[in-house]
Amino acid sequence: MRLHGYFRSSSSYRCRIALNLKGIAYEQESVHLINNGGEHKSAAYKALNPQMLVPTLEVDDLVLTQSPAILEWLEEVHPTPALLPDETTLRAHVRAFCAVIACEIHPLQNLRVLQYIKGEFDAGDEGAKAWCQRWIGDGLAAAEGLLQKQPEQDFAFGDTPGMAEVYLMPQVYSAERFGVDMAQFPRLNRIAERCNQLSAFEAAHPSVQPDAS
Amino acid sequence: MRLHGYFRSSSSYRCRIALNLKGIAYEQESVHLINNGGEHKSAAYKALNPQMLVPTLEVDDLVLTQSPAILEWLEEVHPTPALLPDETTLRAHVRAFCAVIACEIHPLQNLRVLQYIKGEFDAGDEGAKAWCQRWIGDGLAAAEGLLQKQPEQDFAFGDTPGMAEVYLMPQVYSAERFGVDMAQFPRLNRIAERCNQLSAFEAAHPSVQPDAS
Repeated sequence: MRLHGYFRSSSSYRCRIALNLKGIAYEQESVHLINNGGEHKSAAYKALNPQMLVPTLEVDDLVLTQSPAILEWLEEVHPTPALLPDETTLRAHVRAFCAVIACEIHPLQNLRVLQYIKGEFDAGDEGAKAWCQRWIGDGLAAAEGLLQKQPEQDFAFGDTPGMAEVYLMPQVYSAERFGVDMAQFPRLNRIAERCNQLSAFEAAHPSVQPDAS
Repeated sequence: MRLHGYFRSSSSYRCRIALNLKGIAYEQESVHLINNGGEHKSAAYKALNPQMLVPTLEVDDLVLTQSPAILEWLEEVHPTPALLPDETTLRAHVRAFCAVIACEIHPLQNLRVLQYIKGEFDAGDEGAKAWCQRWIGDGLAAAEGLLQKQPEQDFAFGDTPGMAEVYLMPQVYSAERFGVDMAQFPRLNRIAERCNQLSAFEAAHPSVQPDAS
């Protein structure tokens, strides 16, 4: 199994956490989004993933793209340990939590969007930072709100980390990069502190990836 | 089953199509995003859905939010007719197609984002239109590219419409609203023409909803 990704990409980071939690061995292939004019734009990478986004997961001759699809595939093909609960209602709540991050926050802060608002709208670095803070702040407040409806447990939806934490931790990393104060979200913050103590999350952190800079 | 939604919201529209394809009876409760200062901001709606976004699906005392989670829940609890294929690899390809729309296009064109770029970046109506055209165009090109890897069939991933079409058709509607020429995407366009002939899609179309204006 080979994961083509970028150390700082949230969606690559999600896949690293899920693979680690499931104990699946994988190789990494760095696709640096800045160096060499953006390695995701290379002919070789475009042939693999015509959308030219990271991550791509190669499994023998299977090529999977889009982290939400990759994560559901991992859960179906490597079901143990499970990242989603068994019960359908709770699965829906976990997936809603993940969708808040995947559909309400992450798309607004990715590189090509920030390049657009700087290039076309003259947002500048400060404008881009305020933009990110707005969507990360709103989204994490929503995620915190969803957890308020759940009993307090060690992790978001149970006593072990699962899909919610797979999505949450890369978003916390990015919140910190953009200067969003996580103390506003006490429940998310406590979960993040617990995840930070686990090797599956430590080994997935951007700072320890081969292409970290 | 009661769907709280807005006629023009892509994510509400997705749920209407899925419910219709599965033949599930449901009531609709309009949450008008413009009238009355935005009905999604009302105390009553906020109590139901603290994120104040549409849609929300109420099933007895179960309250489900975020369309990707609602759609997976529907598939798990009402499996027939299936909207996802049985085979895990093909399921991953369908979910990747859906994620292109849900995570790469839709979040960038929703109302609060357009309000932000107009309000904070003085994008104006033309700037907002160009912004939408960029992300819709890039995203639909990616979706078309994903289909090029599949055998040509009546619908995106088979001979019947499924989850791919549930996501695609609201995005086609929005592409047309923002002046994106669908002729650039011949395969998507042919699928859309077929869907338009089916009652499940006709009955879900924004123009025939009770709150259409």
